[in-house]
Amino acid sequence: MTGTKSMTATKSMTATKSTAMQTAVLGVSGYAGAELARLLLHHPRLHGTAPVFFGRESANDESIALTDLHPQLADNNGSGHGSGSLRVEPFRWAALRERDIDVVFLATPHEQSRAWVPDLLSHGVRVIDLSGAWRLQQPENRAVYKFEDTDATIAATTQQQAVYGMPELHRAAIKGAKIVANPGCYSTAAILGLAPLVRSGWADLNRGIICDAKSGVSGAGKAPTAKTHFMYAADNLSAYSVFGHRHTGEILEQLDLAPQQMTFTPHLLPIPRGILATIYVTLREPMQASAIAECYRSFYKDSPLVRFHGERLPQIQHVVRTNFCDIGFALAADKQRLIVVSCLDNLLKGAAGQAVQNMNLLFGWPEQEGLL
Amino acid sequence: MTGTKSMTATKSMTATKSTAMQTAVLGVSGYAGAELARLLLHHPRLHGTAPVFFGRESANDESIALTDLHPQLADNNGSGHGSGSLRVEPFRWAALRERDIDVVFLATPHEQSRAWVPDLLSHGVRVIDLSGAWRLQQPENRAVYKFEDTDATIAATTQQQAVYGMPELHRAAIKGAKIVANPGCYSTAAILGLAPLVRSGWADLNRGIICDAKSGVSGAGKAPTAKTHFMYAADNLSAYSVFGHRHTGEILEQLDLAPQQMTFTPHLLPIPRGILATIYVTLREPMQASAIAECYRSFYKDSPLVRFHGERLPQIQHVVRTNFCDIGFALAADKQRLIVVSCLDNLLKGAAGQAVQNMNLLFGWPEQEGLL
Amino acid sequence: MTGTKSMTATKSMTATKSTAMQTAVLGVSGYAGAELARLLLHHPRLHGTAPVFFGRESANDESIALTDLHPQLADNNGSGHGSGSLRVEPFRWAALRERDIDVVFLATPHEQSRAWVPDLLSHGVRVIDLSGAWRLQQPENRAVYKFEDTDATIAATTQQQAVYGMPELHRAAIKGAKIVANPGCYSTAAILGLAPLVRSGWADLNRGIICDAKSGVSGAGKAPTAKTHFMYAADNLSAYSVFGHRHTGEILEQLDLAPQQMTFTPHLLPIPRGILATIYVTLREPMQASAIAECYRSFYKDSPLVRFHGERLPQIQHVVRTNFCDIGFALAADKQRLIVVSCLDNLLKGAAGQAVQNMNLLFGWPEQEGLL
Amino acid sequence: MTGTKSMTATKSMTATKSTAMQTAVLGVSGYAGAELARLLLHHPRLHGTAPVFFGRESANDESIALTDLHPQLADNNGSGHGSGSLRVEPFRWAALRERDIDVVFLATPHEQSRAWVPDLLSHGVRVIDLSGAWRLQQPENRAVYKFEDTDATIAATTQQQAVYGMPELHRAAIKGAKIVANPGCYSTAAILGLAPLVRSGWADLNRGIICDAKSGVSGAGKAPTAKTHFMYAADNLSAYSVFGHRHTGEILEQLDLAPQQMTFTPHLLPIPRGILATIYVTLREPMQASAIAECYRSFYKDSPLVRFHGERLPQIQHVVRTNFCDIGFALAADKQRLIVVSCLDNLLKGAAGQAVQNMNLLFGWPEQEGLL
Repeated sequence: MTGTKSMTATKSMTATKSTAMQTAVLGVSGYAGAELARLLLHHPRLHGTAPVFFGRESANDESIALTDLHPQLADNNGSGHGSGSLRVEPFRWAALRERDIDVVFLATPHEQSRAWVPDLLSHGVRVIDLSGAWRLQQPENRAVYKFEDTDATIAATTQQQAVYGMPELHRAAIKGAKIVANPGCYSTAAILGLAPLVRSGWADLNRGIICDAKSGVSGAGKAPTAKTHFMYAADNLSAYSVFGHRHTGEILEQLDLAPQQMTFTPHLLPIPRGILATIYVTLREPMQASAIAECYRSFYKDSPLVRFHGERLPQIQHVVRTNFCDIGFALAADKQRLIVVSCLDNLLKGAAGQAVQNMNLLFGWPEQEGLL
Repeated sequence: MTGTKSMTATKSMTATKSTAMQTAVLGVSGYAGAELARLLLHHPRLHGTAPVFFGRESANDESIALTDLHPQLADNNGSGHGSGSLRVEPFRWAALRERDIDVVFLATPHEQSRAWVPDLLSHGVRVIDLSGAWRLQQPENRAVYKFEDTDATIAATTQQQAVYGMPELHRAAIKGAKIVANPGCYSTAAILGLAPLVRSGWADLNRGIICDAKSGVSGAGKAPTAKTHFMYAADNLSAYSVFGHRHTGEILEQLDLAPQQMTFTPHLLPIPRGILATIYVTLREPMQASAIAECYRSFYKDSPLVRFHGERLPQIQHVVRTNFCDIGFALAADKQRLIVVSCLDNLLKGAAGQAVQNMNLLFGWPEQEGLL
Repeated sequence: MTGTKSMTATKSMTATKSTAMQTAVLGVSGYAGAELARLLLHHPRLHGTAPVFFGRESANDESIALTDLHPQLADNNGSGHGSGSLRVEPFRWAALRERDIDVVFLATPHEQSRAWVPDLLSHGVRVIDLSGAWRLQQPENRAVYKFEDTDATIAATTQQQAVYGMPELHRAAIKGAKIVANPGCYSTAAILGLAPLVRSGWADLNRGIICDAKSGVSGAGKAPTAKTHFMYAADNLSAYSVFGHRHTGEILEQLDLAPQQMTFTPHLLPIPRGILATIYVTLREPMQASAIAECYRSFYKDSPLVRFHGERLPQIQHVVRTNFCDIGFALAADKQRLIVVSCLDNLLKGAAGQAVQNMNLLFGWPEQEGLL
Repeated sequence: MTGTKSMTATKSMTATKSTAMQTAVLGVSGYAGAELARLLLHHPRLHGTAPVFFGRESANDESIALTDLHPQLADNNGSGHGSGSLRVEPFRWAALRERDIDVVFLATPHEQSRAWVPDLLSHGVRVIDLSGAWRLQQPENRAVYKFEDTDATIAATTQQQAVYGMPELHRAAIKGAKIVANPGCYSTAAILGLAPLVRSGWADLNRGIICDAKSGVSGAGKAPTAKTHFMYAADNLSAYSVFGHRHTGEILEQLDLAPQQMTFTPHLLPIPRGILATIYVTLREPMQASAIAECYRSFYKDSPLVRFHGERLPQIQHVVRTNFCDIGFALAADKQRLIVVSCLDNLLKGAAGQAVQNMNLLFGWPEQEGLL
């Protein structure tokens, strides 16, 4: 493969590129960006090929050290090598070709991702977008983001190309995707917790599904606000965005549910990271716990990053700083009321880790590579 | 009133006792005990009459200083007066009469409360029991405690005398009660959050009610265990006692629900104190938010310790260290799916504060006295 | 006393005013402001006379409800009385006279306090200023605030009138003060921990005193910043303003130390409130612990809001939400190296509580009134 | 190399063993044990050779799953490989030879390590002991542990063979050691923060060095106690073991200080992990910051796991879950008062990570292998 990439070139990259894959990260300054940088820098298949980091922090056309943004990524200062010498550059379109970039991770605001992806595709790179820009196929679900597309036709065409980046549901499609719309953190917990049950047809959708979810503060982003102030979040718990959270649409679309069939309630937990979703389902008819367990085991038997615990309920501290989604359940004595608990690290399986999992699929590598 | 009290005497105490009421606390060493001590010591109607503190910490027939158990209750050391000089005595039955005690607060283990209350009544004192010993009238609900009554007849008679100590529901009965069974912390949040709606008949009970509740660690008690270890609770969230928590029976009895109509799920929050319950109800038919708000306002119009916030959802930090139960709600666009959020401080409105509220009723004082 | 107050009038207020004292709070929106509001609303001597609240939150000449700023101050909604109906008004100079205000608490930024106090004095009110505007008499210590006084003469005259509001050191002067400069939170912990020892002449000042202090996040104020973000403060500890914190000058002035004799290092603790100062002193010569204990006991024997614990070291959780400063010490085997631990609640004894203590002195009431 | 190992064999292991090194961990149930298991399971040079885990949890001669002790170490359940299948076995002396074990990590109580090490050595294995059993050469420093050696001669001989396992100070000696006494967590922070300065002779030891250190709760161990209860540790800070902490002796011995030259004060932080030490030193004479920086840079230029930040002070969140010790300093305007801040993760550089670093040296591998 030469330096000149075309739309065609992107399709064959896993087959023909002889040199190491080159990744780039746009928007490395946030929490997900920092995790992404860490994962890519330590990825065994990218060894020796650090990502190109682009960021608006590098103002005035000058780059800054990655470790000025994220001191925890520093090597020892004496050695002079490693991440200590990495730079965050101002973004330039020409850099995509000059640096021979194969895949761009977008850890940018929704609006920026929405605006930039068509141009990125036209430059012959694949995109893994961590924002909510391209996750939703239904306009009524997407409305909550209030996107203002400058060219509706291009936006529509691009949207059709976007694959929802949940490997456990869309493994094959992701492998050939040009745009991977990396799922929301809450959505990942909810969908993985529900998919086996909903797909099996055992859930009584008319009774409604309730997903009571709780997330650590990193989910609210790095911008200092009244709600991310330590004095607001610490020693507290609050529900927010009730009946209106942006991730609801992803759950509806992926599980093929009508709006009134799913109630999703997020809460802000006084912890740095981690999501736990307590999901309430009524079964169409009484069932044995063993059948439910078998349903989940079978569904996830080829998914190395889902840990199913049967009737042992998972908890946040066992998934934090891992890329696992842990799932367990409890069945009432009436054998019909079912509680599924699903939890994950919102910055890893809920963001940067899942993005790397998607990259692994794009490049034809084992999906858990660099994530254990 | 003389030192000789009889069962009859207890009935008329509010009318005839000319001197200050004398309270006693059994089991002051725990978290609820400490709050109870603090509230009673500062209660305006008990001024000058400190409670008698009994506790097993006072071994070998020797008393210990209250402030050795709870240093935060200390006055300055120089003054020599105030709580600094209070003692926790070994319990003696004779002390009840010698100290002319009117009301005994039990902050003792369930089993001890179950065993002692009949004898306490026979000594002519009234009892406010903070344990779960006497809250449940239905044997099938009480079974979870595995009580072994030595005399089933006495236990049954005593049980009939016990009034569930939730002033908002049983104000009149509490005023004349000999035994007030102070409600559980979770139960208080759930029942107060649901009572107006269930009593109005608007909730579709066949669709099931879900109460997803979260509590701070003080709810787990003072005993050091694997689950109260800082390393277990901090930066974590876990569900526990799913489909089997002891407080479920209280909710069923007080709201007159069948077991399959209520799903109650407790979670352990990484905070010292506070409970937030997110309650999911389906209405029988679509309703306006204003009607729901009016239902709650009307129900609690004479309840000074419930704050109803309408469509503003309450949060834990606004109730911690208060005796309020804060309630708010959100209604879905379909006008039928309803979320009620109810929260309180588990050691105050969920324990010691509610106990003092009950004492106020027993003594004929305004129920919020000493609690604002 | 009539509505017309003059400078003379302020001097005699404790003697002649027959009606309740009228307080006002400027800048009630912050953390100290909220605590101040709470303390004043429950103060037994101010019963029935709520403070007048002024704040910039009340934009466009419209007032807002106090409980919109601080929901935790709300009474139950049903009653219609109490703090639920209190308003925060836009400040008007004329209001000082119209509302017959005796004392104004300033919980305003340093610069605003510096600018406004002379005018407030000229309106015949007394001022208790919680900012750092008037605490420092030495220009070289004050330099760190970079005040730009519009009239240097007035500023100098006003500065001379300011009394450092630490009752344990300046009780008599505070009683007659027109301006009470309420001490800084760190300064209070450090000065109270050191004063007995330094005044006794036992500390070897040439060896240097080290005050290693740690504060909860509320000390950093309510403005959302990178450092008050939950993700920065939680699970973390960091030193800051090393060799340059603004409170250093207060410690030097009050203890009459030279700069090189005191090293003061603040750290940001991952807790909402509380300060603990670990203070290292070398004694001029070996001493017995009993002599040190006697020195402290004697010094604070008439100070009801200092609790001296002897050789038991105090900890933050016993002072949080109290107005006490707790002090203890440990002496090395060599009887010469001494560690004093001093701790307090930065919003109470370190701010609003001490301000009320100063108000009590101004009005001739017991200094602990409304603070226990 | 055959299965028969002798004392001689241990000396040549790095040179001649053709197969992978076999490690064993005794006492894997604690926090350091869990970290050690994780590090060894992912160590690139041990790939394919999982450690042998011994533990008392495996009672009745039956083994238990490692992931029952530490669920966070589990792979996904579907795969059936990886750590999910690892067992913790009851310890048997014969197993040392049967499993061809080269190095045993002891994460056992001090007393057990003291008792077992001589026998382990006689079985021809090398030992890396994470307890305090063998760290101290001076009997007066060791006295604090109250060891009761059954054979004083053997104990003395064994003690002489023990090398203090701080690679930055004793790299060469560790490479040939039979017993590596892995340093204490506080000691590591203090010694690394001070060694360059003390060795250079610039610190005025007569003025005394003060080390004010703060540690997360994991340092207190896994046993549930009153002090590790969430309600004690959360929202709190307390000093403990003042003038008597067990790690003091290590600091004195390694820096060759007299007891009165070092004051070491530990505090319990309300965080899971991390230590920050604020160290106060007076220089013999005024110096430039650049000279101090050069002193540290030079001292640690070959130490890949120390990050020296110059005049930028490090903080806990940047070292947690890394094996780095971060060091920075601030110099007063008088150029003589110096504050050094040193911080690390108490379970990694302060325990398990440093143990692996020592193993790397023993085996002749780069010391940071598996630790970045």
